[in-house]
Amino acid sequence: MQINRNYLNLQESYLFSTISRKVSEYKSKYPEKEIIRLGIGDVTLPLCEAVINAMEAAVLEMGTQQGFRGYGPEQGYDFLRLAVRDYYTSRGVTLQDNEIFISDGAKSDLGNILDIFGLDNTVLIPDPVYPVYVDTNIMAGRQIIYMNANEENSFLPMPDKEVKADIIYLCSPNNPTGAVYNKSQLKVWVDYALSHNAVILFDSAYEAFIQDKEFPRSIYEIDGAKQCAIEFCSLSKTAGFTGTRCGYTIVPNELVYENMSLNKLWFRRQTTKFNGVPYIIQRGAEAVFTEEGQKQIKENIKYYLENAKIISETLSDMRIWFVGGENSPYIWLKCPNDMTSWEFFDYLLETANVVGTPGEGFGKNGKGFFRLTSFGKREDIITAMKRISNLQF
Amino acid sequence: MQINRNYLNLQESYLFSTISRKVSEYKSKYPEKEIIRLGIGDVTLPLCEAVINAMEAAVLEMGTQQGFRGYGPEQGYDFLRLAVRDYYTSRGVTLQDNEIFISDGAKSDLGNILDIFGLDNTVLIPDPVYPVYVDTNIMAGRQIIYMNANEENSFLPMPDKEVKADIIYLCSPNNPTGAVYNKSQLKVWVDYALSHNAVILFDSAYEAFIQDKEFPRSIYEIDGAKQCAIEFCSLSKTAGFTGTRCGYTIVPNELVYENMSLNKLWFRRQTTKFNGVPYIIQRGAEAVFTEEGQKQIKENIKYYLENAKIISETLSDMRIWFVGGENSPYIWLKCPNDMTSWEFFDYLLETANVVGTPGEGFGKNGKGFFRLTSFGKREDIITAMKRISNLQF
Repeated sequence: MQINRNYLNLQESYLFSTISRKVSEYKSKYPEKEIIRLGIGDVTLPLCEAVINAMEAAVLEMGTQQGFRGYGPEQGYDFLRLAVRDYYTSRGVTLQDNEIFISDGAKSDLGNILDIFGLDNTVLIPDPVYPVYVDTNIMAGRQIIYMNANEENSFLPMPDKEVKADIIYLCSPNNPTGAVYNKSQLKVWVDYALSHNAVILFDSAYEAFIQDKEFPRSIYEIDGAKQCAIEFCSLSKTAGFTGTRCGYTIVPNELVYENMSLNKLWFRRQTTKFNGVPYIIQRGAEAVFTEEGQKQIKENIKYYLENAKIISETLSDMRIWFVGGENSPYIWLKCPNDMTSWEFFDYLLETANVVGTPGEGFGKNGKGFFRLTSFGKREDIITAMKRISNLQF
Repeated sequence: MQINRNYLNLQESYLFSTISRKVSEYKSKYPEKEIIRLGIGDVTLPLCEAVINAMEAAVLEMGTQQGFRGYGPEQGYDFLRLAVRDYYTSRGVTLQDNEIFISDGAKSDLGNILDIFGLDNTVLIPDPVYPVYVDTNIMAGRQIIYMNANEENSFLPMPDKEVKADIIYLCSPNNPTGAVYNKSQLKVWVDYALSHNAVILFDSAYEAFIQDKEFPRSIYEIDGAKQCAIEFCSLSKTAGFTGTRCGYTIVPNELVYENMSLNKLWFRRQTTKFNGVPYIIQRGAEAVFTEEGQKQIKENIKYYLENAKIISETLSDMRIWFVGGENSPYIWLKCPNDMTSWEFFDYLLETANVVGTPGEGFGKNGKGFFRLTSFGKREDIITAMKRISNLQF
């Protein structure tokens, strides 16, 4: 038996293990110091009441003969798919019911979608990047081209007509940079994809953080996108579902390549290799889209965005260059005094007892940059920013 | 962009849609007839109390600041992995903690495991078969060899030394036939795999239905299996989790091919393409393995097995040849009077108003055979068997 040798080409990331080691070493040296973590990419507020109530009711249902549910549809229950459809309708995007697939999260589907594409496609991926885009393609042996996201383009790379790509990853609001494409920029990407017969994999996991109307929350707000884009969204950051696992993937019927409907291919993939999201979880997800649920999750998002604002204002006052923080939970800053990412990490840890994430962990263009996140507690954010604003660069 | 053209080689199954159409037509013709469905492959009893209580508590936890859980480990929480480990220990199988991966079900992992194997491997699959084994390999473009399961071998095919296979699927107790390998038969398979440097993918989703001690409930009860087998199990049939989604996959550390640990490859695959099973569901799964949970799920399994016994006894009295039904929820019978599967389907529907599943839907060796399942209600099983025993063949 031969293993998949493409796995041998994967690089191990030591980013989070190195952070963890450095923090431990510092703590054992200075046990009295109170360290604040602003590197965390996970939500911290509990699930909202509407979700809890819906899941509790669903659990109790499953214990009764009448309410018990066995296998559900692989693509998700209608009650949830229609709730997602209405959520899009409320933002001006009309979807067909069969275009909506309920998933156990954007990460799974972003990897699994590759099953329906040939191995000879060329993949275009921004750098810095969410590592999953890269690793899933290395595992399959596809050729990867990187596009530079950097200070010059405000970490929003635009297409190069000379580059021939088949599969394009876009993430907006971006992880790790927090940068957000506006409508005219996304229109350029859609036109590029259409003219190159490419497909865009659009990761909109952070769409709920967008407050300004000029930024699209779905790529389908752009004309032509239904002919060239698949959208992946998740309730992880929208509603605190990181440990509860539910998202949705939109595969428009208009997506046709080599005379085959991608929607039909994905449906075949999912019915063969997936068995749906737990009924209880789908009921919780449905509650997110109710009036009550929307009100409650928006309070949480507001809390995180206010945290982001506190961070952004501190950096602005200090004249530190950054992107993100306005329509995103992430703030991506340029390390002051030409420090490297790791030098800044050490400096921040030692002088302010604040932990962030070195940008170079996300790709070569992350060198000299640094990610802060707004998922912490308000009092910690305030304390951390007071400490940072006292630093001298 | 090129699609994965292997998908064009997939065959559509019309098995369940044809059954559904035939039943609808009959019902509209004879609306007064009371039809009993014994074709269902899904459990019908609700989740047991221990599971419900654990999930309800976990839901409430997730609504509190202190109890909230974000991202969990992709391979599952320790509390559940250790419960699975102890479950194996109680049956005499010792596992290392890191060999246990919590999944959202056997179906997903049986498909996903293929990611870590090369595309040039030859796959050996029994016929009749659970269609997922076949379709997932067609999607990847692997060569498939079939082995015949038939009346002569009591639907328990044994290895042919002349056949060179790299990846071997075994399912025991079998879906769809209900046939169960004994220890000496599985030992022959393990020896074959070891001598051919092959890997066995052992689907033990129905292990909890095994009552007789002569039949292994895990392939690791066989010497040498840890060097050649991955085991997939699920709580779907064990504890009624078909709509709740939780299972586990065992990848022993001793599995080494081309100097690579399959355990490490699978860990890399899961951390990259999966984000774990919901915390709430894992707490429910943990409760299955408590003393109380085990008592409760065993009552349900006993109920289904008693149903199977009622069916088996009827068939025995009628001198109809069958396998399964003793250590399995499935009964696989030879259609009387040389009827084809579909002729018998029509005959049963029209004369006894009973619906089963034509065997030929599971492969060419299913021709002339028929599957009945024991997941229905007791009174329905009794009524159906009374009707069938009145038939003349």
